[in-house]
Formats: sequence, structure tokens, C-alpha cells
Amino acid sequence: MPTKPKPKPTLTGRIQAIIEAGWFQNTIIAVILLNAVTLAMETAPSLVARFGEVMHAIDAICLSIFVVELLLKLFVYRLSFFRDGWNWFDFIIVAISLIPAAGSLSVLRALRILRVLRLLSLIPSMRLIVEAGIRALPGMGSIVLVLAIIYFVSSVLATKLFGGEFPELFGTLGNTAFTLFAIMTLEGWADIARDVEAVYPQAWAFFIPFIVISAFMVLNLFIGVIVGALQSIAEEDARTEREQDRAKADATLSELRALRAVVEEMRRKG
Amino acid sequence: MPTKPKPKPTLTGRIQAIIEAGWFQNTIIAVILLNAVTLAMETAPSLVARFGEVMHAIDAICLSIFVVELLLKLFVYRLSFFRDGWNWFDFIIVAISLIPAAGSLSVLRALRILRVLRLLSLIPSMRLIVEAGIRALPGMGSIVLVLAIIYFVSSVLATKLFGGEFPELFGTLGNTAFTLFAIMTLEGWADIARDVEAVYPQAWAFFIPFIVISAFMVLNLFIGVIVGALQSIAEEDARTEREQDRAKADATLSELRALRAVVEEMRRKG
Amino acid sequence: MPTKPKPKPTLTGRIQAIIEAGWFQNTIIAVILLNAVTLAMETAPSLVARFGEVMHAIDAICLSIFVVELLLKLFVYRLSFFRDGWNWFDFIIVAISLIPAAGSLSVLRALRILRVLRLLSLIPSMRLIVEAGIRALPGMGSIVLVLAIIYFVSSVLATKLFGGEFPELFGTLGNTAFTLFAIMTLEGWADIARDVEAVYPQAWAFFIPFIVISAFMVLNLFIGVIVGALQSIAEEDARTEREQDRAKADATLSELRALRAVVEEMRRKG
Amino acid sequence: MPTKPKPKPTLTGRIQAIIEAGWFQNTIIAVILLNAVTLAMETAPSLVARFGEVMHAIDAICLSIFVVELLLKLFVYRLSFFRDGWNWFDFIIVAISLIPAAGSLSVLRALRILRVLRLLSLIPSMRLIVEAGIRALPGMGSIVLVLAIIYFVSSVLATKLFGGEFPELFGTLGNTAFTLFAIMTLEGWADIARDVEAVYPQAWAFFIPFIVISAFMVLNLFIGVIVGALQSIAEEDARTEREQDRAKADATLSELRALRAVVEEMRRKG
Repeated sequence: MPTKPKPKPTLTGRIQAIIEAGWFQNTIIAVILLNAVTLAMETAPSLVARFGEVMHAIDAICLSIFVVELLLKLFVYRLSFFRDGWNWFDFIIVAISLIPAAGSLSVLRALRILRVLRLLSLIPSMRLIVEAGIRALPGMGSIVLVLAIIYFVSSVLATKLFGGEFPELFGTLGNTAFTLFAIMTLEGWADIARDVEAVYPQAWAFFIPFIVISAFMVLNLFIGVIVGALQSIAEEDARTEREQDRAKADATLSELRALRAVVEEMRRKG
Repeated sequence: MPTKPKPKPTLTGRIQAIIEAGWFQNTIIAVILLNAVTLAMETAPSLVARFGEVMHAIDAICLSIFVVELLLKLFVYRLSFFRDGWNWFDFIIVAISLIPAAGSLSVLRALRILRVLRLLSLIPSMRLIVEAGIRALPGMGSIVLVLAIIYFVSSVLATKLFGGEFPELFGTLGNTAFTLFAIMTLEGWADIARDVEAVYPQAWAFFIPFIVISAFMVLNLFIGVIVGALQSIAEEDARTEREQDRAKADATLSELRALRAVVEEMRRKG
Repeated sequence: MPTKPKPKPTLTGRIQAIIEAGWFQNTIIAVILLNAVTLAMETAPSLVARFGEVMHAIDAICLSIFVVELLLKLFVYRLSFFRDGWNWFDFIIVAISLIPAAGSLSVLRALRILRVLRLLSLIPSMRLIVEAGIRALPGMGSIVLVLAIIYFVSSVLATKLFGGEFPELFGTLGNTAFTLFAIMTLEGWADIARDVEAVYPQAWAFFIPFIVISAFMVLNLFIGVIVGALQSIAEEDARTEREQDRAKADATLSELRALRAVVEEMRRKG
Repeated sequence: MPTKPKPKPTLTGRIQAIIEAGWFQNTIIAVILLNAVTLAMETAPSLVARFGEVMHAIDAICLSIFVVELLLKLFVYRLSFFRDGWNWFDFIIVAISLIPAAGSLSVLRALRILRVLRLLSLIPSMRLIVEAGIRALPGMGSIVLVLAIIYFVSSVLATKLFGGEFPELFGTLGNTAFTLFAIMTLEGWADIARDVEAVYPQAWAFFIPFIVISAFMVLNLFIGVIVGALQSIAEEDARTEREQDRAKADATLSELRALRAVVEEMRRKG
């Protein structure tokens, strides 16, 4: 979030007060939900035939509102707008909708539905979940890299070994990567392995270790994430409790030392 | 559970004493089990041919017992009957059985087997498990919503992108939702993806992120539930232990302060 | 394990000393491994053709050794032999091999390989794992029962609803139970669901909740087992540590009280 | 890692200083990455046609660098080179590339891609992950053995029972082992079971327990690994904290005892 200076009664300040107000955010959420309904209705040809024009009008109005919202934010926060990843997210989603959807770019029309993902940036509890998910990624970094290396080596190996006989499954590096991803999810791996073994009887020596090792790596990833999550929660919980306990132990010890000093003094005097 | 006033020797009180008695609950459980057997036997045409009439008679008797039980409960607890979710559960299950099972409602006859689910509400240990499951749901709320948004956006996107060429899999929003649910369970996803890629070579850019993101969300959901369960148990365990430890630490500190007061007094006097 | 009286120099005592000796147990393990090899070789017709007679001779010798071992144990421990579940396990496995394998009982010949499972009862570390697994079962009791009730209700329901049109998948309660088990493992569920939906368009309202609820129950089972295992380990670990901490806290407090008593006495006297 | 004597200004010392320098390790990593690119490019016939000679030259240069690196290491560390498992790993991977890739050994050419796995031994964070994975293996030992025994017994049993009618799936011990591995991953198990049940109606009594028991064992394995990982982390965390707490408790107690000694002395004197 951009820094939030106290809004002054200037134009910028007034606009900032508006775009940061609860009712404004709720309005945007309502517009997104309305837009989600019209975009979902567009998938039904019968509804498009009857309400097509109304739906397009609503869609255009929603887009205008998003553009105005974004322009207001850009006006208020200026360059600091781009310091927040979520703003980039909103910016790109709205920008996609503004590209003229002609010819080979018609897929962009379909991407308008991505606007609904803006709910993730607008509703705080969801924002937290996405941020927690993203924050968990670096902790998985090394293990994902190990998995990527194993995956890359296996792909080149399978392409070289089986590519000649099975061009559809293992013909190019891309095909092999897809096939190995499917095997990693265990989807139809046995049929593929049986087909390959009919030509190369030793092929099981590739498939079974690949499945066991990738399953073991994914298991490790899984454990890493669980352990990480448990630890960070347990630490926070334990810290405050422990600090209280320790404060008490410190109080006891200093109390005791003070007492001893008094008694020692009494002995010296007495 | 409805509040449980001490049963007075009125009619209401006497009935309440009966329906809350152990033997009454056990009788109902026995009737449910008997009914479960006859309903299971109804699936075998040979048994229906031979014992059909006896089975229907038993079924009618069991239903009567459930209706009487429910009426007694309604008479005793009156409106407070409906404050307990489990009572609603029992009420709806019995009500379904009373709708005349004619014509297009013949599916309702099949739903009579749902009566066996009443065991979940009658046996305390199962009741606890179901309640624990339901109590875990709100904690999953936000993440389920994020998953729902991603799922909705993906459904609309896939319908728009692939619906024209694959009407059976992605023709309507409903078909796409079913197909994506199957893909999320990894069931036959590779075949679907290969078919779609034959027409749209870039389709992997939809399927692979969808699988990875939905698997990651489900993993997060999983971790959330495990961490939540572990925490609530660990907290309960730790609380009593800690409280005992703290009581002792407090006793030590106050003992020490009293001692110091005495010594200080001695010094002043001495 | 049967109680282990100090072996006296009687015949029983001497035999007990032998069958409880390390070398005797190791010999039995070696015989099991040898028998495992011959039984595995029996699956290869070419090996049977060449070494068939030798293999059968070895098999007969191994069986004789197991019978003698069992008779010795029965002679030593008498009825207390049957107090140990593992002895029942060994007894049944050997008994199966002694039934004349003729006619329709030829499947019993195949069951001779179960003898290899005796390794689980003979090697202590494996015995521990199996025992730990069995001990975990009661803790899963209630949740397995809830799962069983849901499974039973779903089976009857699916048989009634879909049995008429899909006799192979849902014709009898047995067929449906098998089909639903396959669906629970997510194996081919989408194809089955699509076939059924072609006839009953609302069938997804049965399949999707069934998958979600059974997955949720299995998740709960999973969590329950993990939490249980973690707790019992954590408790054992924490107990000794805590007891030491507490002993120290108690020592501090009693030391302090003794000191205070002395000081109070001094004050009264002084 | 071989012991690391302080490098003296001898030839050995100078070479050791070089091969242990950061820039040297980084150069090797860069060479591996370059080699990975050329090996990946070799999978595309169009690229081989155009850049084939350049790629082979680069490949030969990379291999030479690896050989020189290995010879330098062997010269410096001599026999202690072979005390480190990672050195064995590097040595075997380079040795494979030096075997003349002719005739039936052409598969060895494909194995050159394994060189990329050397990244796992060169980058410390990945090395840690692989080492952690390997260190987790012994803890899984007993349970893996139990799983192996169950797997072996099931394989022999299925070969004997179903091998005659289904030679492709269960004909030899090897085929059955492959089929049961596929069933354990739940891949296509229902189709196999249905085919077998058409001939042997009781076959479900083999398949369902096999799936449930192997799933239960894998679950146990999973829990064991998670619990082990959590414990070792929790222990390390707790140890330092606890030791600090205990040091404080000890200080309190000894302080108190010293004080009591002083007071007792005062009383005796006073």
C-alpha cells in the first residue's frame, strides 16, 4: 500500500479520501460482482441472443468504472502507485480489457473474466491468503529448483531415449515435458509405460525411479511447507508466553539478589 | 440440544423423561439398524420377490416409530426443538419419507435410506466427529472462497476459449465446471488436455497453471486444517500445564516478597 | 508374549531355552527366506520344469521345520500359546499349508506364500511397526464408522437410483460398493459419472458431494492419525523435561519457605 | 569433503587453492549450464542439422573441462577423494561420458545429460536438500521393509492366482510387480480389477485389501517422515531456549541457598 499521508482539503486529498473510503471499495466490489454475472451469462448463446446488447452495455459501464478508479488512484498516488504489487495486478487486468480485441487477439476478450480476480486484491481476508501463499514460495525455492533439475534431466533423457519411436509423447522437449508432468500426477502413466516397454523392455528402469523420486521430492516440499507454517505459528505463540515467564523469572532473581544484599549488609553491621 | 429443565411429574415431564432415557435412544438406534437392513434388502429383486410384503410392513412400522418419536419431541420441546441443527436434520429426513412417492418424485423413495444417517445424530461419538468437521468449516472459509473465485474464473475462461470446439466438455458453464472438477481431481486430465491441444496448441498454458494453482490451494487448505487442529489441541494441553507452572512461579515470587518485607522490617528495627 | 518362567533343567525347560535362543530364531528366519526364494521360483514355468522336484523337496522340508517349531512351542507354552495374537498368526499360516490342496482348494497352494509374512512376527523392528499400526486403529474407530455409514447409505442410494440402467456398475449392492470404492480412489470416476449423467442429468448431485464428503472424511482420518501420533510423541518428550523443571521449581519454593521460617523465628526472638 | 590442510606454497597446495576457490566452482557451474543448453538443443533435429558441429565441439570442450577438474581433484586429494559420496557421484557421471558410445551402448550417449545433476553436488543449498533426503531414508527403513515384504508376498500370490489367465498383467513376477506398482498408485486399478473379476469373481478380496493396506503403509511412512522432521526441528529450537531457562532457574536456586546459609549463620551467631 502506498504511504497514506493525512488527507488535506486539497483536490488530491479529497479524491484520496473518496477512494480509500469503505463505501467506495464496496461499490467497486459490487461492480465486479455485477460484471462477473454478465461475463458468465455471455457463455450462454441463448442469453446472448436475448440480452446481448444490455450485457455489452453493462460490461462497457463496468470497464469505464474500473478505468476511472485506476485513473483516480494514479492521480492521487502518482509513481508510488507502482510500488505495490497489487496495483500492478489491477493495472494489467484493466489494461488487457482496453486492447482492441480484433483478429488473433480475440483471446483477449475471453481474458476479461480475469477482472473478477480483482476481488482477491480488494477483499482483505483473501488478500492475506494470496500474500501468505506468495510468501511461502521463497522457502520452497531450493527444493523446487532440485525438482526442476531432475525434471529437466529426465525430459532430455526421455526425449533422447524414446523420442524416435514415440514422437507424439516424447518427440520434442515440450512434448516430453508435458508427458512427464502427466506421469508426475500419475495420470495414465501405466498405459504410457506399457506402450514404451513394448519397444524398450527396460523402460521401467526410467519410469519407476522417476515416479518414486518425483513423489519423494513433492512429499519433501509438502513437509517443508507444513513444517514452516507450523513453526512460524508456534514461534509467535510461544514467544509472548515465554517472555512473560521469563519476566517473572527475572523478577524473582533480582528480588532475591536485592534481599541477599540487605541480609549481607545486616550481617556486616550486626 | 434444547435446554433441559428438571422433569416435573407433569405429562410433559414424564414424556421428556422417556425420550431422554438411554433405553429409548437405544431402541431408536435398533429400529434404524433394522430399517437399514430392510432397505438394503430392497436392492435385491430376488429378496423383494420373496419377502417384499414383510419388508414393506417393517418399513412402515419403522417410519411410524420415527414419526411418533418426532411428535413426542415436538410436544416436549415445542419451538425450542428447532434451535438444534440436529433436530432439523432428523425432521427433514423423516419429512422426506412422508411425501407421497408418486410419479417424478419416485427418487424420494430412494432417499428413505437417508434415515440411516440419523445414527450420526444419535450416537454421541459420531455426533462429535460430524460437529468437529462442521466447526472446521468456517476456518476454511476464506481459502474456499479464493478457490471458488479461481474456479469460477477458470470455468468462464475455458467455456469461452474451448466451448466452441468441445461442446461436450466445455460447452456450457455447467459442463466446464464438471470438467474442471474432474481435472482438479487429476482424473483423465491428460487425455482432455491432449485433445484440446490438438486444436489449440497453447492450451497447456491454461491446464498446467490451473492444475498447479488448484493443487497449491488445496494443499494450503489441507495445511490450514491440520495446523488449526494441532493448535487447538496443543493449546488446551499446554494451558493447564502452564497455569500450574505459573501458579508455582507466582507463589515463589510472593513468598520472596513477603520474606524481603520481613527482613527489611528487621533491618529498620535492628 | 507368553510369560517367561526361568527355564529349569527339565525337558520343557531345555526346549524352551532352545526355541527362545537367538540362533534358533535366526535359523527360522533363514528357512523362511529360503522358502520365499523357492516359492518365488515356482512362478516361473521354466524354472519349475528344470528344478521342480528340488523346489518341492525344499518346500516340504521348510514346512516340516515350521510344523516342528510350532509343535515345540505348543509343547512348551501349552494353552498360553494362544494368548498371543502373533502365535495365532503363525498357527493359521502353517495350518493353511497343511490342508490338502486338492480340487477347489487349489487356491490354498498359492496361499503358501503367506508364510513369508511370518518375518513380520519374527523380526522385532517390523513387529513394532505392525503393532503400532494395529494400535492406531481404535483411535480411528469412530471416524471409520462415520465413513462406513456414509458409504453404506451411498451404496443403497446409488443401487436404487442407477441400478436399473447400469446393472454392471450399480446392479447389486456388491457391485455398487466396488464402484463407489473406485470412485473414492478417484479412479475413472469422471467416465462413470459422464455415462450416468447421459441417462440421469442430475447425477452430478450424487457424485460430486460423495467425492467431496468422502475426501473430507479421509482427510479428517488422516489428520486424526497424524495429530494422535504427534501428540503421543510430544507428550512423552515433554513429560520428563517438565518433571525435571518442576522438581527444580518445587525445590526453590520449599527452600524459600524454610528460609522464611528461619527469618520469622529470628524476628520473634530478636 | 576431504580434510582441508592449510594450502602450502607447493604445487599441490597451489592447485588445491585453485579448485577450492569460489571463481573455480562458479566456472564449473557455468560450464555445466552451457553443456545443459547444448544437450537440450541436441533433442531438436532441426537445430542439430544447423549447429550440430558447433554443439559437438562445445560438448567435447565441456567434457574436457570436467575431466581436467576431476584429475586435479584426484591429484590433490588422492585416495581421500573417494571418501566423499559426492565425489563418487561426480566421478561416475564423468566416467559414463568417456565410455565409447558404440553399438548397444548408444544409450550411454543419452546418459550424458546426467552431468547436469552435478549442479546438485556443486550448489550448497541443493546439496543440503539431497543430503537431508538421504538422511531421512534410514528412519524409513523398517517401514519400507514391511512394505517390501507385503509387496513381495502380494506379487507371488497374484502371479500364482491370476497369471494363467492374464499373462500380460500377471504372467511373470516382473509383470506382476509392475502391475501392482501401478495399482498402488491407483492408476487404472479399477479396470484391471474388473477384468480379473470377470474370470475370478472373488478377486476383489485380493485387490481391495491390497489397496487399503498399501495405502495405510504409505500413510504411515508419510506420518513417520513428517513426525521425524518436526521433532528434530522442534528439539533444536527448544533445546537452546530451555537451557537458558534452566540456567536461570539454577541461578535462582543457588542464590537462594547461599542466602539461607548466610541467614542460618546469623541465627547461630545472633
